[in-house]
Amino acid sequence: MIDRVLNKDLPQKIGQNISIAGWVDIRRDHGKLIFLDIRDRSGIAQVVVTPKASGALETAKTLRPQWVVAIQGEAKERPESMQTEGKLGRIELVAEQIQVLSESQELPFDLSGELNLDTYLDYLPLTMRSQRARDIFAVQASILEAYRASLHAQDFTEYVSPAIVGGDAEGGAAVFKVDYHYDKTAYLATSPQLYKQIMVGPLERVCTIAKVFRAEKSSTTRHLSEITQMDFEMGFIQSHLDVLKVLEQVIRDVVNTVGEKHADIFSRFKVEIPKLPEKQFPILTLKEVHKILGIKEASDMDPEQERRISEWAKKEHGSDFIFITAFPSTGRAFYTYEDPAEAPYSRGFDLLFRGLEINSGSQRIHNYESIISRMKERGLDPEKFSYYLQAFKYGMPPHGGSSTGLERFTARMLELANVKEATAFPRDMNRIDVRLRE
Amino acid sequence: MIDRVLNKDLPQKIGQNISIAGWVDIRRDHGKLIFLDIRDRSGIAQVVVTPKASGALETAKTLRPQWVVAIQGEAKERPESMQTEGKLGRIELVAEQIQVLSESQELPFDLSGELNLDTYLDYLPLTMRSQRARDIFAVQASILEAYRASLHAQDFTEYVSPAIVGGDAEGGAAVFKVDYHYDKTAYLATSPQLYKQIMVGPLERVCTIAKVFRAEKSSTTRHLSEITQMDFEMGFIQSHLDVLKVLEQVIRDVVNTVGEKHADIFSRFKVEIPKLPEKQFPILTLKEVHKILGIKEASDMDPEQERRISEWAKKEHGSDFIFITAFPSTGRAFYTYEDPAEAPYSRGFDLLFRGLEINSGSQRIHNYESIISRMKERGLDPEKFSYYLQAFKYGMPPHGGSSTGLERFTARMLELANVKEATAFPRDMNRIDVRLRE
Repeated sequence: MIDRVLNKDLPQKIGQNISIAGWVDIRRDHGKLIFLDIRDRSGIAQVVVTPKASGALETAKTLRPQWVVAIQGEAKERPESMQTEGKLGRIELVAEQIQVLSESQELPFDLSGELNLDTYLDYLPLTMRSQRARDIFAVQASILEAYRASLHAQDFTEYVSPAIVGGDAEGGAAVFKVDYHYDKTAYLATSPQLYKQIMVGPLERVCTIAKVFRAEKSSTTRHLSEITQMDFEMGFIQSHLDVLKVLEQVIRDVVNTVGEKHADIFSRFKVEIPKLPEKQFPILTLKEVHKILGIKEASDMDPEQERRISEWAKKEHGSDFIFITAFPSTGRAFYTYEDPAEAPYSRGFDLLFRGLEINSGSQRIHNYESIISRMKERGLDPEKFSYYLQAFKYGMPPHGGSSTGLERFTARMLELANVKEATAFPRDMNRIDVRLRE
Repeated sequence: MIDRVLNKDLPQKIGQNISIAGWVDIRRDHGKLIFLDIRDRSGIAQVVVTPKASGALETAKTLRPQWVVAIQGEAKERPESMQTEGKLGRIELVAEQIQVLSESQELPFDLSGELNLDTYLDYLPLTMRSQRARDIFAVQASILEAYRASLHAQDFTEYVSPAIVGGDAEGGAAVFKVDYHYDKTAYLATSPQLYKQIMVGPLERVCTIAKVFRAEKSSTTRHLSEITQMDFEMGFIQSHLDVLKVLEQVIRDVVNTVGEKHADIFSRFKVEIPKLPEKQFPILTLKEVHKILGIKEASDMDPEQERRISEWAKKEHGSDFIFITAFPSTGRAFYTYEDPAEAPYSRGFDLLFRGLEINSGSQRIHNYESIISRMKERGLDPEKFSYYLQAFKYGMPPHGGSSTGLERFTARMLELANVKEATAFPRDMNRIDVRLRE
């Protein structure tokens, strides 16, 4: 066959003999005519097979969904009555020759139907070929790209954070154990936190896309055992507000990029592109949140309160995003900075997006003696942190950073009910590719 | 203090009163005058402290390397006799006020000296602040960025590959075990291979930057236990030569970007920017390699032969890169495609860069029955691959891809003696941050 043309380029090929290649998405048998929807990475094109190409028609009769084919023929404008919406809706390829590159067994179900989540996950190598899944992963790829591009434009340097760590240093989040060399027990990182702080020393502004692992026995729509975190950390800040400023710029850049690039996907999902307020994202202290919601003060928020305050932000500020600050220090990680004048509140913050916390960050403690006292207060052994503590021993500037969950961000972007749908290969209590137990 | 200016912007601030912030790199005490080299993320600037600013001079006397300071003063052109090379060599800041943001304890050694590797690694949070380490990680960040940008320009979509896998499916490489939920044993991925092949189904051209883990008891200058692989996989190829073409474009883009952006680093390392041949990278079959080297045929190459054939490529083709193809199928991974007409040679290839294999790839088997027979030939149980095999059961196009080791690529780029230097936080048999045993 002659060189392949991508489906998206067909409108520029009208009148030419060309070939395309892809998967059979749908075959419609109209007796004398067969219509094929052929999917490639650029879109879905209609092919019409007529009795004039008798060999092609014979082959077309055998085709079933997910068969892989190369088809040669002439690109033509469709008859007016056959034209549909979309970029390829006015074009078709009139087949002259069909080559089967690979056959598919009969599908266990119709890919375009609504599947229950477990069936969807059991058959991911197949179900990710659906329009819905391809849309989700197209959006996710754009989030990753825009996130890095924004930080890069803000002068951050990417580094690679480790997945295997030597100790369950931070405590707290349940952690997976690894059998390491010499029968030593190692652990899977629950956060790139300590490493990105260390990297502020050499590079001042760093970012990383890191895998983190949580052995928590949580089986909710918001939890995964293997998560992708988009982290940054920056030196020479005045307060956590400098971190918020960088983060807000990142979020704006991501939303604008994704919104522009994937307007068609938002429309297929019947979801609005996230609303960004004209000025800055609303910032509330936890105290203010409780007041607005008319509830008793507490040290944190529950999912229901997160949803309600997000609705408030949407209504009052036209913003799908809202920052919450001034959580009590006791509830935040040990490295969170507390200004003596602001005690007992920390300089930590959360970012809520459409009712869900997608990012958490803070100004950090930068003084060597302070970080050691804080560890002792928390019952942590500074000896076990000797490696990390070198960064502070040898001079650290005031610094801070934040961490965005990629799967949560993707899920809220398209209003998916479960973060598992926003993960190509989700791992949780019950599943690593296949179910762990029936 | 007034708003901070980055060191690199000082030349535009001559005559102005501004402030900078960073780490004390060097302090030179000339009695009445003190000179400071202040490092920030943008470069190193000279500060002069004179008796006119008596408070600043008192503070300057207490400063030591790695102290973190903010300094306010006037940006001035240096006296002609004091000018040096480099972008900031003609400028200095005449200090009026110095604020200590953070102190450092006395350094255990001089950071600019040549350290032995174990000392360097023991003190990474400190030693990564050296010019050499910052240079390495600046280059590595640019490799990552250029690699992704090139694949993106070639229409690849990034996806996130898992680190935790359910079985030691591929066998071969020694694998780390993870205690998963419900006392189930999971494993750390030794490659994103099976997952990126699956993703060809939905997205056709995919790439990922994935962590892989090798429990091999190897303690060489080329081995790590946790590695970063830059992978891509593409559908609808004619042969592995289509993969080589994409890969060569990626490598060219990376080398050109890094070479242009970091000419100063190559010059500090006294290393040449890698040589790219005008036309295509040389491609030799393994048979041809053995003939050129005048040695007996074998099924693979040893490190010495890799070095020698790389020298040949440099001399004969002006190329620091050379592809080797047509390895016997028996020595390659089970999914490697073998064309019946070319048996017993596979469509696998390696890419050597300055004497070291940095990439390995191939055309893959795409037919469902063929992949199952190949598994059986290799003593692998298709049942254990049922998830992966769905991709083939439901129609896979001819496809192929390759995998580049980030640390090896970085190490050869700057001709580092050991890949551990090309890793921010190297893990190996003997070390996770700290040494595992004395």
